[in-house]
Amino acid sequence: SKNYKITLLPGDGIGPEIMKVAVAVLQAIAPKFDLTFAFETALIGGAAIDATGHPLPDETLQSCKNSDAVLLAAVGGDKWDSMPSHLRPEQALLGLRGGMELFANLRPAQILPQLIDASTLKREVVEGVDILVVRELTGGIYFGKPKGIVADENGVRRGFNTMVYTEPEIDRIAKVGFEAAQKRRGSVVSVDKSNVLDVSQLWRERVTAISSDYPDVKLSHMYVDNATMQIIRNPKQFDVILTSNLFGDILSDAAAMLTGSIGMLPSASLGVAGAPGVFEPVHGSAPDIAGKDLANPLAQVLSAAMMLRYAFNEGAAADAIESAVNKVLDSGKRTGDIMADGCEKLGCIAMGEALLAAI
Amino acid sequence: SKNYKITLLPGDGIGPEIMKVAVAVLQAIAPKFDLTFAFETALIGGAAIDATGHPLPDETLQSCKNSDAVLLAAVGGDKWDSMPSHLRPEQALLGLRGGMELFANLRPAQILPQLIDASTLKREVVEGVDILVVRELTGGIYFGKPKGIVADENGVRRGFNTMVYTEPEIDRIAKVGFEAAQKRRGSVVSVDKSNVLDVSQLWRERVTAISSDYPDVKLSHMYVDNATMQIIRNPKQFDVILTSNLFGDILSDAAAMLTGSIGMLPSASLGVAGAPGVFEPVHGSAPDIAGKDLANPLAQVLSAAMMLRYAFNEGAAADAIESAVNKVLDSGKRTGDIMADGCEKLGCIAMGEALLAAI
Ligand SMILES: CC(C)[C@H](C(=O)O)[C@@H](O)C(=O)O
Ligand SMILES: CC(C)[C@H](C(=O)O)[C@@H](O)C(=O)O
Repeated sequence: SKNYKITLLPGDGIGPEIMKVAVAVLQAIAPKFDLTFAFETALIGGAAIDATGHPLPDETLQSCKNSDAVLLAAVGGDKWDSMPSHLRPEQALLGLRGGMELFANLRPAQILPQLIDASTLKREVVEGVDILVVRELTGGIYFGKPKGIVADENGVRRGFNTMVYTEPEIDRIAKVGFEAAQKRRGSVVSVDKSNVLDVSQLWRERVTAISSDYPDVKLSHMYVDNATMQIIRNPKQFDVILTSNLFGDILSDAAAMLTGSIGMLPSASLGVAGAPGVFEPVHGSAPDIAGKDLANPLAQVLSAAMMLRYAFNEGAAADAIESAVNKVLDSGKRTGDIMADGCEKLGCIAMGEALLAAI
Repeated sequence: SKNYKITLLPGDGIGPEIMKVAVAVLQAIAPKFDLTFAFETALIGGAAIDATGHPLPDETLQSCKNSDAVLLAAVGGDKWDSMPSHLRPEQALLGLRGGMELFANLRPAQILPQLIDASTLKREVVEGVDILVVRELTGGIYFGKPKGIVADENGVRRGFNTMVYTEPEIDRIAKVGFEAAQKRRGSVVSVDKSNVLDVSQLWRERVTAISSDYPDVKLSHMYVDNATMQIIRNPKQFDVILTSNLFGDILSDAAAMLTGSIGMLPSASLGVAGAPGVFEPVHGSAPDIAGKDLANPLAQVLSAAMMLRYAFNEGAAADAIESAVNKVLDSGKRTGDIMADGCEKLGCIAMGEALLAAI
């Protein structure tokens, strides 16, 4: 049997509840596909701040690096909002991305037929939408230097950050985008702001150059403002959206919101070949409903499926989880966030049990 | 009678057609309110490139600076897309903004009841939406230095731009945002990315400080990724959105697209007190339909109304134009872009005539 080492990062808010469900699902799936999992749980975010004073303790980063894959839930909450910014829970995410060199963030936004009415967009606009946002995750303005807040001789302050990409950084994320498109519908829209930004001009030039190695993929370019409009106007035109860190942050949230059910969306953050990736839901830690057995565990469970597929190449096991999720939705079971007329409302624990029954 | 000097910048694509309608409307309104207008037409964008080799000739900038207000249509088109980037039509916009110090860009996005079905969002989500995006327009990453594309010792290139704001730049746009909210529904959402960017931390700090001078305005803060989601999820929560240059570019387009009819949306770009502002539609130059009498002139006409209101303080004359637009829409007349079942389809010229008849 194949054994995989998984670091679990439950984090804050609803994190621990939904993680529990995902782990139970993984354990239920394992024997059916002759897999075994060795789980190691580590602290991150506010929970880590409370225990150690730091949102990403070195032990946590080491455990992640030594694993075959990392399953992360969510971090953050009001409780830590007044911390100095370098000690805020979100810094753990940036530290993890930088520390594990997770340069490729894959965020699928797919309309599930069972949940189509949860969208704020009209049915005919979103029916069949299936977008993959490929976001660069370790460069751009998130990590660019110089940065800071400085005062001039008169004491007037200026705040500044640097949006920067090198050619190799662009090339490697472009390859991820084109390869993803080859396995999907063969189209990449690269999003930049090259009519204004030098860094985007280099981006567009390199993406275009790399595209010549993928003659089977159709490449087009869009400015970020127009792309945001097009996501609202006609989202079906998109297959893969390839973009930089900041633009990907914005566009992946826009694409996610099209579905009306971000409680359903998983994501993957991948590093260089052979290094472990991080798998996590797109939604946040939802502190307002934490501990009340109200959370939707499905994005976390689908993140575990994504881990099986991308990190371990266990497609059949991933399929089994995804079809259990589908079966549960088909049977009309829903958590509060995706509740609809005529459906049966379940808590987080009961939803987990329904999944186990469906497996 | 009061006389106003207006520089007209018809620009490219459908620009000249829609400008003709706006000018006719202004001329029809003038005698009713004891106004006279002295128009001066100047070259901008591709038209200026063709005639002078430069997208914003010095003469044009001088004419704008010497006017009481500038009415701009739209610039750009495929024809000039292969020009080197510093000579592209869009550079004229940046040159105009910088050259006239137009630091405050006001972009209203309002759902017109007659056009509500044009939205891709559900009626109940967008009904009554009335958002004003207040975008900083002469700072941030659009104008920040250093910037460029440079090679290291091994010939590997990096592209970079600087996102930068000083305290006075933030303070003055924040005041515009709060004052706008006082005349509206009294709420400002300031959008930044202060969980990642130093420049956003200074932004948030200064906006909060300035807000103490406006105790009647309710201020809240949102990260740009969440704001984009919220615009799609529940746009009615927003009154004034106050934000930086790049985020405003993206969010104002998202807000505009909610209406489903960006052919209807005007905008204003204002400078320091007493200096002329620029008024223009949100939509582009639509080269594909240029010269075919298919364009929708209403955003251009509403931009002229905005000019009367903001630049000349002629609110009654602005009202008269806006109510003519309403009357024409109520009577079921539509251009192709906003056509609906049971309506009468008009070209650009006929729409102009309908407006004149309604005045
Ligand atoms: C929490 C924040 C730092 C993070 C980001 O901006 O990348 C989040 O918005 C995300 O998209 O994962
Ligand atoms: C054309 C471009 C430079 C411009 C901008 O980015 O500001 C446009 O998108 C706008 O919003 O007016």
